[in-house]
Amino acid sequence: MDQSALYLQHKELLNQAIEALSTRQFFSPYPEHPKAYDPKLDAEGKDAFGRLLNENFTRLRQEADEWIGEEVSPLWQYGIGVRYPSVSPEKYISNSKAAAKEWKKASIETRAGVLIESLERVRTRFFELAYATMHTTGQSFMMGFQASGPHAADRALEAVAMGVQELNRYPKDLNFSKPLGKYSLDVQKSWKPISKGVGLVIGCSTFPTWNTVPGVYANLICGNTVIVKPHPKSVLAIAILLAELRTVLTELGFDANVVQLAADTTAQPITKELAEHRDVKLVDYIGGNAFGDYVEGLNKTVFTEKSGINSVIMDSVKDIQAVAQNIAFSVSLYSGQMCTAPQNIYIAEEVKTAEGVLSFDEVAAHIVEAVQGVINHPKMGAGTLGNVQNDATIKRISKVGGNVLLAPQKVENPEAVNARIQSPTLIATEASSTEYREECFGPLVFLVKTENTIESVAIASTLSAEKGAITCLAFSTDADTQEFIEEQMNEVFVPVSMNLTGAGFVNQHAAFSDFHVTGGNPAGNATFADASFINRRFVWVGNRRMD
Amino acid sequence: MDQSALYLQHKELLNQAIEALSTRQFFSPYPEHPKAYDPKLDAEGKDAFGRLLNENFTRLRQEADEWIGEEVSPLWQYGIGVRYPSVSPEKYISNSKAAAKEWKKASIETRAGVLIESLERVRTRFFELAYATMHTTGQSFMMGFQASGPHAADRALEAVAMGVQELNRYPKDLNFSKPLGKYSLDVQKSWKPISKGVGLVIGCSTFPTWNTVPGVYANLICGNTVIVKPHPKSVLAIAILLAELRTVLTELGFDANVVQLAADTTAQPITKELAEHRDVKLVDYIGGNAFGDYVEGLNKTVFTEKSGINSVIMDSVKDIQAVAQNIAFSVSLYSGQMCTAPQNIYIAEEVKTAEGVLSFDEVAAHIVEAVQGVINHPKMGAGTLGNVQNDATIKRISKVGGNVLLAPQKVENPEAVNARIQSPTLIATEASSTEYREECFGPLVFLVKTENTIESVAIASTLSAEKGAITCLAFSTDADTQEFIEEQMNEVFVPVSMNLTGAGFVNQHAAFSDFHVTGGNPAGNATFADASFINRRFVWVGNRRMD
Repeated sequence: MDQSALYLQHKELLNQAIEALSTRQFFSPYPEHPKAYDPKLDAEGKDAFGRLLNENFTRLRQEADEWIGEEVSPLWQYGIGVRYPSVSPEKYISNSKAAAKEWKKASIETRAGVLIESLERVRTRFFELAYATMHTTGQSFMMGFQASGPHAADRALEAVAMGVQELNRYPKDLNFSKPLGKYSLDVQKSWKPISKGVGLVIGCSTFPTWNTVPGVYANLICGNTVIVKPHPKSVLAIAILLAELRTVLTELGFDANVVQLAADTTAQPITKELAEHRDVKLVDYIGGNAFGDYVEGLNKTVFTEKSGINSVIMDSVKDIQAVAQNIAFSVSLYSGQMCTAPQNIYIAEEVKTAEGVLSFDEVAAHIVEAVQGVINHPKMGAGTLGNVQNDATIKRISKVGGNVLLAPQKVENPEAVNARIQSPTLIATEASSTEYREECFGPLVFLVKTENTIESVAIASTLSAEKGAITCLAFSTDADTQEFIEEQMNEVFVPVSMNLTGAGFVNQHAAFSDFHVTGGNPAGNATFADASFINRRFVWVGNRRMD
Repeated sequence: MDQSALYLQHKELLNQAIEALSTRQFFSPYPEHPKAYDPKLDAEGKDAFGRLLNENFTRLRQEADEWIGEEVSPLWQYGIGVRYPSVSPEKYISNSKAAAKEWKKASIETRAGVLIESLERVRTRFFELAYATMHTTGQSFMMGFQASGPHAADRALEAVAMGVQELNRYPKDLNFSKPLGKYSLDVQKSWKPISKGVGLVIGCSTFPTWNTVPGVYANLICGNTVIVKPHPKSVLAIAILLAELRTVLTELGFDANVVQLAADTTAQPITKELAEHRDVKLVDYIGGNAFGDYVEGLNKTVFTEKSGINSVIMDSVKDIQAVAQNIAFSVSLYSGQMCTAPQNIYIAEEVKTAEGVLSFDEVAAHIVEAVQGVINHPKMGAGTLGNVQNDATIKRISKVGGNVLLAPQKVENPEAVNARIQSPTLIATEASSTEYREECFGPLVFLVKTENTIESVAIASTLSAEKGAITCLAFSTDADTQEFIEEQMNEVFVPVSMNLTGAGFVNQHAAFSDFHVTGGNPAGNATFADASFINRRFVWVGNRRMD
């Protein structure tokens, strides 16, 4: 296949994507619903996934000194047995540097063509990705499909589009003429975006493609090469995706090592050796705060998405049942393992509703009832909760005591009898207590009783500034209070979602429209995907010449 | 004066400036030549400067616990006696936070109007700035005028224009509609650029306004407030400029403490206390590497312009005399105290010229002769060299030995008999020696004999990557070699100026066209002024609402 033909083939999609970056309107070229795809793809994807089990994952065509893997399906609770190629960190880096020679010289258009083509190939594997994601992260089929498939592809395309836009920001060359009285100073000037070098992208266990591809595609469009170090318990989905990318690179005449998978094991981690290597110039990190702080301390170009304490602020509502349902779904979805899931629900002592003022206890009862409704609903239940990725999450939560309003309920997945399912634990607490002031990852929610909304906002904003926050869901029927909440939370760089009901959920961040993580508080230093997410990956250099 | 009227008054200039950011063509709304200004302004400026001497600088209208100042004129070699208001670091910061309340709420247009108006006011003080700059930095009148006046105003306007462009990048609000089969999810979305807070701008002794205003104006347009901590030996010029800015702020109804001067003394520096304060969120730093590295290690948003080892690469030339003259002027200008001045001239053993091959010694002789020509020229001499800002620079250079081709020459300034003038010391050295491998600030130039251009480039690029570099001047008549030099130096993020002669000098970086410092090597982590120079100063926050 020809490089320029490939670009022309994807040019229209690219231009639509670039336009969408500015308009921020709905744009999702990869439909999110499985029914939008050829029905035979589901069976093919399931079959393809099945054939990967207990085998070496050879599709990457990467060299291997050994084959390693330790993923365990949260649905089956036994290992999936897939093994990935492994070489030394030094070897990954020398491969990457060798592959860079041609890749950084390729035109922006050529790179864009290759990257979009890879997404088109991945499109045919969305179902395989869904099953791979289910059996590594514990996500439900629907979430695994959407998050690892179309939503990840949207985010990757967003990074490519932002890259093409920024890399073309200045003229390639021009004749500069400065008037100097009777004559002029004439200089030929040219500007080049120079790539920074080898980029390391460190993935997380829960969203192995969605959180990884923005850094990967952003690096690649800028001419950097990439080493992906996935979480050792969540490799398969990103491996499937990278295999397509490597295939396209090879077909177009590039060294496939422009992007490599660098799997490791819990016993022998390689992340720090890679991250600290002098030839690694960029690090993208998605995961917990402790390691994220370490990454931010490296003297490199670093992009982090860590975690935080997300809040719900209950001031006043029109329809308490609709609101309680909205909250219930957001805290239940994937058992609170989304980085956007609420942890603390601040409820004023008196919450105004259309049917009169409700007390904290009454509001709490509505939320408890709504959560029970979600998890006991035959069509939602297991499908909404998904499964808990890591045993340790459940162990940690079981140690948290207090005024438990709702303990974990028995929820079964008839299709996976061993599934590690856990419904949210709801704990009522006073504003003066401390246990809710730390991040508690997973299905655990605190209902915090406050004097009034002013106190709710004060606590939520203080914790956001100190510990970080990615989202804030707020409910108020009063315009001044709405503005107050937005202003106060925005000051600590937390976006506010106000009065969401129905199909609008705080957990969702749409590519091309919603920025994901603001970069302004300790929940992360970067955003999917603003201009800085691209511009920090390369350097403008301007040359001048006279004859 | 009315805020919106002010914006409308400056809107056309702003729009021209925004367009210039993209075209990169010559754009300089503040003429660089003194003759372009009303002739009476010169006398007025000199007079105004004279009246400042040995007085408290009250024009800032800043509160003072005490009045401090220790500037010494490098021309007179005695103190100018100007004293500046001083309060505690804690007080500057509380002032700044108080002033932020209204400033961050002001519209982008209002801020732009205020900032451009301040530049228009400063325009009337360019001559006063020239004299203030001469008698603090040691620059010649012409350089003091251009650098502190029009060129600084250009750079400030550039930052404002880049700010307005980026701050308006996304829609303020829109109705987002996501199709969901038979119905749609409708959400009102809005985006706000939220300022980060208090910015500290740390100035340097040699270019007190040119290097300071980009950070000041970039912070201000983004809604941040600013504390300027000038070099204690070079305060007056930026004080004059900030006084105008504070006056305009006051006239428009803002708290003048949106920008404050925080002078200190060598004996009692306050820089670290300010920089480390938890409420200081942004730091701009211009100066030496040691302190710059400290600033970069702060866990804040940091912009640095440090120093490096700039190179000249002599491969082949058309006209050795024209080339030698160009180099001579660049190394003599302000006695090598510009951050863009060359330090090491790498000369191949054989340099092709139109009149045959020249040896290293012959090329060196041409350069020595050309430097003598510049410094002994009655119309250039003292006016080109200016004066050495700091005694320590001369002491340091006097300790460097070796094969001295040209020692400091006796150059006199008839208008300032005590002037601290020092012409460049030219030292010939072998590639294998080490003394040229460190930054040597001031009038000291190494002529490094190399085997060939490949070796010249190898050394220059290695030193750039390790120690930093802001410029590279190269001479080659061969197209392949030109490309080789550009590619190799660009790889370490150093821009190349090729075959400059006549009025084109490597020292010059024009606002709106040339980026100043690339940010890609140890000479600094930021650029005057790319998109990141703005975008890192605020955070996009997107809110969502449903009814």
